[in-house]
Amino acid sequence: MNDNPAFGAGLQPFMGIPSFMRLPVSRELKDVDVAVMGVPFDSGTSYRSGTRFGPRKIREASLMIWGHNTTLNVTPLKKLNVVDYGDVSVIPTSIEHTMDEITKTASKVIESGAKLITLGGDHSIALPLLRAHAKKYGPVSIVHIDAHIDTWEAEFDAVPYSHGTPFRYALQEGLVRKGGYVQIGIRGPVTSENDYADAKELGARTITIHEVMEKGVQEILKEVHERMKGPVYVSLDIDAADPAFAPGTGTPEVGGLTSYQMLQLVRGLHGLDLIGFDLVEVSPPFDHGDITAILASNIAFEYLSLLAIK
Amino acid sequence: MNDNPAFGAGLQPFMGIPSFMRLPVSRELKDVDVAVMGVPFDSGTSYRSGTRFGPRKIREASLMIWGHNTTLNVTPLKKLNVVDYGDVSVIPTSIEHTMDEITKTASKVIESGAKLITLGGDHSIALPLLRAHAKKYGPVSIVHIDAHIDTWEAEFDAVPYSHGTPFRYALQEGLVRKGGYVQIGIRGPVTSENDYADAKELGARTITIHEVMEKGVQEILKEVHERMKGPVYVSLDIDAADPAFAPGTGTPEVGGLTSYQMLQLVRGLHGLDLIGFDLVEVSPPFDHGDITAILASNIAFEYLSLLAIK
Amino acid sequence: MNDNPAFGAGLQPFMGIPSFMRLPVSRELKDVDVAVMGVPFDSGTSYRSGTRFGPRKIREASLMIWGHNTTLNVTPLKKLNVVDYGDVSVIPTSIEHTMDEITKTASKVIESGAKLITLGGDHSIALPLLRAHAKKYGPVSIVHIDAHIDTWEAEFDAVPYSHGTPFRYALQEGLVRKGGYVQIGIRGPVTSENDYADAKELGARTITIHEVMEKGVQEILKEVHERMKGPVYVSLDIDAADPAFAPGTGTPEVGGLTSYQMLQLVRGLHGLDLIGFDLVEVSPPFDHGDITAILASNIAFEYLSLLAIK
Amino acid sequence: MNDNPAFGAGLQPFMGIPSFMRLPVSRELKDVDVAVMGVPFDSGTSYRSGTRFGPRKIREASLMIWGHNTTLNVTPLKKLNVVDYGDVSVIPTSIEHTMDEITKTASKVIESGAKLITLGGDHSIALPLLRAHAKKYGPVSIVHIDAHIDTWEAEFDAVPYSHGTPFRYALQEGLVRKGGYVQIGIRGPVTSENDYADAKELGARTITIHEVMEKGVQEILKEVHERMKGPVYVSLDIDAADPAFAPGTGTPEVGGLTSYQMLQLVRGLHGLDLIGFDLVEVSPPFDHGDITAILASNIAFEYLSLLAIK
Amino acid sequence: MNDNPAFGAGLQPFMGIPSFMRLPVSRELKDVDVAVMGVPFDSGTSYRSGTRFGPRKIREASLMIWGHNTTLNVTPLKKLNVVDYGDVSVIPTSIEHTMDEITKTASKVIESGAKLITLGGDHSIALPLLRAHAKKYGPVSIVHIDAHIDTWEAEFDAVPYSHGTPFRYALQEGLVRKGGYVQIGIRGPVTSENDYADAKELGARTITIHEVMEKGVQEILKEVHERMKGPVYVSLDIDAADPAFAPGTGTPEVGGLTSYQMLQLVRGLHGLDLIGFDLVEVSPPFDHGDITAILASNIAFEYLSLLAIK
Amino acid sequence: MNDNPAFGAGLQPFMGIPSFMRLPVSRELKDVDVAVMGVPFDSGTSYRSGTRFGPRKIREASLMIWGHNTTLNVTPLKKLNVVDYGDVSVIPTSIEHTMDEITKTASKVIESGAKLITLGGDHSIALPLLRAHAKKYGPVSIVHIDAHIDTWEAEFDAVPYSHGTPFRYALQEGLVRKGGYVQIGIRGPVTSENDYADAKELGARTITIHEVMEKGVQEILKEVHERMKGPVYVSLDIDAADPAFAPGTGTPEVGGLTSYQMLQLVRGLHGLDLIGFDLVEVSPPFDHGDITAILASNIAFEYLSLLAIK
Repeated sequence: MNDNPAFGAGLQPFMGIPSFMRLPVSRELKDVDVAVMGVPFDSGTSYRSGTRFGPRKIREASLMIWGHNTTLNVTPLKKLNVVDYGDVSVIPTSIEHTMDEITKTASKVIESGAKLITLGGDHSIALPLLRAHAKKYGPVSIVHIDAHIDTWEAEFDAVPYSHGTPFRYALQEGLVRKGGYVQIGIRGPVTSENDYADAKELGARTITIHEVMEKGVQEILKEVHERMKGPVYVSLDIDAADPAFAPGTGTPEVGGLTSYQMLQLVRGLHGLDLIGFDLVEVSPPFDHGDITAILASNIAFEYLSLLAIK
Repeated sequence: MNDNPAFGAGLQPFMGIPSFMRLPVSRELKDVDVAVMGVPFDSGTSYRSGTRFGPRKIREASLMIWGHNTTLNVTPLKKLNVVDYGDVSVIPTSIEHTMDEITKTASKVIESGAKLITLGGDHSIALPLLRAHAKKYGPVSIVHIDAHIDTWEAEFDAVPYSHGTPFRYALQEGLVRKGGYVQIGIRGPVTSENDYADAKELGARTITIHEVMEKGVQEILKEVHERMKGPVYVSLDIDAADPAFAPGTGTPEVGGLTSYQMLQLVRGLHGLDLIGFDLVEVSPPFDHGDITAILASNIAFEYLSLLAIK
Repeated sequence: MNDNPAFGAGLQPFMGIPSFMRLPVSRELKDVDVAVMGVPFDSGTSYRSGTRFGPRKIREASLMIWGHNTTLNVTPLKKLNVVDYGDVSVIPTSIEHTMDEITKTASKVIESGAKLITLGGDHSIALPLLRAHAKKYGPVSIVHIDAHIDTWEAEFDAVPYSHGTPFRYALQEGLVRKGGYVQIGIRGPVTSENDYADAKELGARTITIHEVMEKGVQEILKEVHERMKGPVYVSLDIDAADPAFAPGTGTPEVGGLTSYQMLQLVRGLHGLDLIGFDLVEVSPPFDHGDITAILASNIAFEYLSLLAIK
Repeated sequence: MNDNPAFGAGLQPFMGIPSFMRLPVSRELKDVDVAVMGVPFDSGTSYRSGTRFGPRKIREASLMIWGHNTTLNVTPLKKLNVVDYGDVSVIPTSIEHTMDEITKTASKVIESGAKLITLGGDHSIALPLLRAHAKKYGPVSIVHIDAHIDTWEAEFDAVPYSHGTPFRYALQEGLVRKGGYVQIGIRGPVTSENDYADAKELGARTITIHEVMEKGVQEILKEVHERMKGPVYVSLDIDAADPAFAPGTGTPEVGGLTSYQMLQLVRGLHGLDLIGFDLVEVSPPFDHGDITAILASNIAFEYLSLLAIK
Repeated sequence: MNDNPAFGAGLQPFMGIPSFMRLPVSRELKDVDVAVMGVPFDSGTSYRSGTRFGPRKIREASLMIWGHNTTLNVTPLKKLNVVDYGDVSVIPTSIEHTMDEITKTASKVIESGAKLITLGGDHSIALPLLRAHAKKYGPVSIVHIDAHIDTWEAEFDAVPYSHGTPFRYALQEGLVRKGGYVQIGIRGPVTSENDYADAKELGARTITIHEVMEKGVQEILKEVHERMKGPVYVSLDIDAADPAFAPGTGTPEVGGLTSYQMLQLVRGLHGLDLIGFDLVEVSPPFDHGDITAILASNIAFEYLSLLAIK
Repeated sequence: MNDNPAFGAGLQPFMGIPSFMRLPVSRELKDVDVAVMGVPFDSGTSYRSGTRFGPRKIREASLMIWGHNTTLNVTPLKKLNVVDYGDVSVIPTSIEHTMDEITKTASKVIESGAKLITLGGDHSIALPLLRAHAKKYGPVSIVHIDAHIDTWEAEFDAVPYSHGTPFRYALQEGLVRKGGYVQIGIRGPVTSENDYADAKELGARTITIHEVMEKGVQEILKEVHERMKGPVYVSLDIDAADPAFAPGTGTPEVGGLTSYQMLQLVRGLHGLDLIGFDLVEVSPPFDHGDITAILASNIAFEYLSLLAIK
């Protein structure tokens, strides 16, 4: 916890300086268990920009999180030493320089022994994050919660990276453990009849929204636990939730998950060897009543709680 | 598809001119399978106006639809010749002149052999559309998805037509096949204890939201398939969805369908002889994050997909 | 009903002066069955203010309620003599003076024999309302529908009352019948691991959202009917609904009830000896498309319908 | 003033039922000096609808008006007996029936001897209002404050009336005193090079925004006082103000008046024989922070103050 | 400046943690020249609440301020040691406890020798701030920039303090130097014909908006410099600006100052012995595009620049 | 004009497909006098993104422009053959590839003999546009209307181009005629005390907002006409206007121009040899009531009118 009174520890959520859950804002990594880091990069999106304001708004919403997780019965900040690491310095005009910076910054954190909780930004940031984690852990298993497969081919030859391609490259670069890649919540129109088959060939197990709705979240989680071996990285695109629950996002996809299901999915990862996490695509300019940011901050807290009971 | 590069074919959805799915904007009907037409009329509403901006906003949202329907496994624009026919010239100050214009324009399109997908506008436009379709097809079966029965008596003696009365007149004018009228998703306060009974007497099978919630969408669809014979017209009021999923509408009714159920309902019409479709009551000034328009454009795409696999 | 034509009786909902359901605005209590009263107090909230505009906006939304409840088959305003009593005169700078004023005004109404439907305002108003009701009825049973337990200890020693403490004090002051207090929809982070246990010790039966989701609303209602004896007061915090359905509130809590479940819960109280009701925490500045106010007005109408079929 | 405590007289502006300035809501005209009346008709607009919510929102904003006009040193409600007459029953689908209703209702009020302050609604309502006033007073002088000339020819042959034509018909129907028609604040693109000349030929003195900006408001007012003889009707379109000051309107026109200039213009009519007033084109769905409605309510109060010092 | 890289010094304004101008967040007052402090109290307002989010949003907007003031040719953070002191712990339910807390916290800061820049919150906070300053400096001169006189009598006998009364009590408590109180920008309806006279009698020189518009800002400043002797406290209510420039406020008053005039007024205080400053009534929930918060942050920067060139 | 009826020529502005002023959407350049082109690139901004939606929204707002410019007495579309050229294909993740694409596309248009009206997008697009124009015309004179100097040094070494640097590079690359560069409307905080001097040394005549306010627009225009020789390129950043008039922009700067002054400035360029124009920084997600887009479309129309009377 933050013992600097100017931050407003102990005050009601509308007061004080909004670091994540009022954590100390620090780049000091000694004895740190978890670092929360923002990556306010929004140039990788194919439709609505604005996720550059995601980290700031999620931090603000996090002040409403009182601290004890009743479902998991844990008070994470009592168990873990957590800091708000601030934001990666992104360059909106160049995804390539930004990706290097992300990998470099993330590596610094995780090589110190701390775990990372990364708040996006658009989904293109997952690739450099995975590079950093695979460098430390070797190929990782991935739980990818999303409306979109994000294994598309490059849209622009000149610059292959975007929010639609991170997992294609992660798979091709060998950052993913063979058989250890699951996508959950997938739906909506795609570019061609081969997109799902391509994803499969690349190594994805695509669990569509239809499967989730028909089998239920618990059944899906069973399969996830079967497939996930070794170190597991979780990449969560807020647009997995229906636009009713997460309107503030770049490419909303109707027919999605409820906020309750989103929390169930994350909570159900309990027991896996969770080594990294990103939560992406929160776009505050398109949000209203901050409900998307509030959902995101609660999901991040749920993940943090898992680390505390691990 | 639109081969005019100025429209932005091939570009990301935030670029280019927003015709529906970047279709050619044309009144040329030769060899056209389907015409998408707007009817920006909003004077028929009893509460919030603004649906005059419905067609424009749905077109804009449609640019995010990538083209291949994964659930139905079809790429409609590869199978069908579709155009954006533009908007009917409405006169907001006179529903009667507007209705004539709608019937006239719709007739021109469907008499050419093309199918119509009509984007409203408020629900009053369904009556002149039904007149045009019945003129060509004879009395039609109707799947009417809505929160409201819309078979009310005229509120104003002087001008009986409004968004609350189209199906009363369609039934009374003999535009509907006997026994072929189903309303789905009905709920909320009505004017008197006789309203449902009146609807029944006029010929409606009223399936309330309670029936949908208790039996499930698949069961409802079974009944729909049993009742629907011959040419089927689909009239979908976006307020069938709960305001959480479709806030941008004129008379929101709480306790409604999810976006997933909406898509299920439309998709489940597969196999019927679908000859006409309207999607009404999207009111962008009351929407946020465009989620209502996005839902509407996806529903229209779902219907278009049905035409392609027919 | 209101026979003053200037109010707009008989007009469409966008016309006329917005008293609740166009009821007469009056402090005359003779022969009145139910009085609808606003308490626009928002200083008790721990996060977003704005509920001071709740009563006004709920009244406005209520004009869309046509009058006949189809599910319960009753037209309440035909059965009951109802007035809009206007608002309690609150003092935003002093919760203590405001609480006295609430108790005093509420007592005047209920001592006349009328039942109260109170529109908040934040949840701190429940305590003075309960004081008034307990004074008349003795200790009451309470159905408390909410995301939060609201039995917390005072945050500020100086001023113990807030929107997080009303039920602690109600229990401690003996306003609640022993064993007659149920909380439904509870979820989200709390301040410490003892919060739920504290609530239990004070006398609450806490039904979490998990119980509701797993057992279903009907099963929950069964338990409610078992526990509720004697006069029953209903206190409903709109944030029991998920932020997707009720974004316009002070402390949104994700993972909540749908609007359909909210209506089911209230409707399911049929048969209890309902003697008082408050609906709180609607904060219009954070709402969009008025969907929260519309939900609230429908819930109030549902409760009013219960009084009419009692 | 309203002595019904349920309305909230004496309470702060966020409390109570929003009639205009908390006036009694009444159709009783005996001894009434001024009646405030709404005309929530928005079908006559050529771009954005939504003015149907104008009267309601202006009433709400009027609660912030404390009562004493410091510039004119008068407390109008102490000098005049004023009522809120409620709204004219409009039929959005038919401008013709609506116009008849407006004329009929307005006539009833002014024939009683009361003066009317009418809150729109779009500008099409000015014609039926002028018909009522000319019937009582004979041809009237008109001060028309607006960005647009509103003397255009009918756009639709079928229905000539709209918010762009009222003054053409008023002039042609002989409702206007010869030489007694001034338009102030005119600007922006028009349909053809003859539009201004047409207006002149019909009898308008068109004072463009350029004249106002170059000569100043006081100079303009001098000319107005010279031209205005006999009974004077004031028709004020809120879009005379720049969109920065009045964004909530149907056809915003940039390069307009400030709110300070708007008040100056109205205040400067002191001394004329003011017999009628309409304030139109406030469209709340496109407003933000209610600033347009607040401006409108202050302008109406300024006009009311003029009546009180007359 | 903040040398903690996690805060994002050197990053673009959309990155990093939003303390005011990225200042260190600290309660350490040694060698501090200026402390920026928030007072997020919004219970004192008579209309729209929401100023509790003022300090947070002004801090966020301040990140766009690049550092060098071109008009005054100074880079304040190079000349002055400034900290972000965080927020005073307010109790929204009790203005009295909150006022004590404000006076206590402010005193601690100014007794250390630092100057205070206080960000509100509503205008009720000015009284306890003046108490703290008068305790240190003796009776102070006051430049009060506002639309409202704020010398009203208590509305509630029980709790005399509100955002409409601070200067009445400051004058009555002897906190103000005789003859040293100027109000600038005053306008709009008041409660009675005596309000201005009362203010005068209490000791105010009321400069209405009419004087400002007719004489110009420079002339007004001349008078201000003549009247202001000794230590000068500046209290600036953002509603002095017209709602077009500052929509995000509690009681908007039309016909006000431009943002250019606001900056001119503050800048023109150069040369006075400025010993304290508050900027109040920024209410983000009613703002749009953050323009009110951006104006406020620039005004605070302008004042800070004055301290640097003093 | 567009003779394709599906576009909605002749319809009211809320109907039809929104190309700029309903122009034909075409890449055919034969006999084209003016091409309107969008560049929806928003990665170059240092604060709020969203200008990628600028071209689309300005086109939509342009439908309200009726065609005849009353001040300049010209109907541009009668004099000039104009097309809507659609959008340049931008790559948000790479400013360098985007800049190449812009230069290439712009060159194609202007080499055909057509004049370009370019709608941004952020201000970084001015550099590639200037490259294209200088290639055809040699070094050009530039009228640069803006709040910011935009001659800053690169913020990121890796990628020097951004919305803060275009004119530095234009000057350094020799695209600007010596002595032919004027900046108008400049204000607000800058990074250091040398920024203005740097701009001057690079060749800029910086006319601050203070000069504009003190001398008046006509005086400024005199200087502009004196300095502008040969072919003149106009680059207009909408943030030259005050945020009250143009809230929908990336880096709002308070204390700016009114919309009336903006139009005056552009209109006053009459007589110069105008060879190119860009209007940038309209960011619809931060706009409200579309007032920024409406201002932008009117400014573009004013410029188009100048071309027609040239």
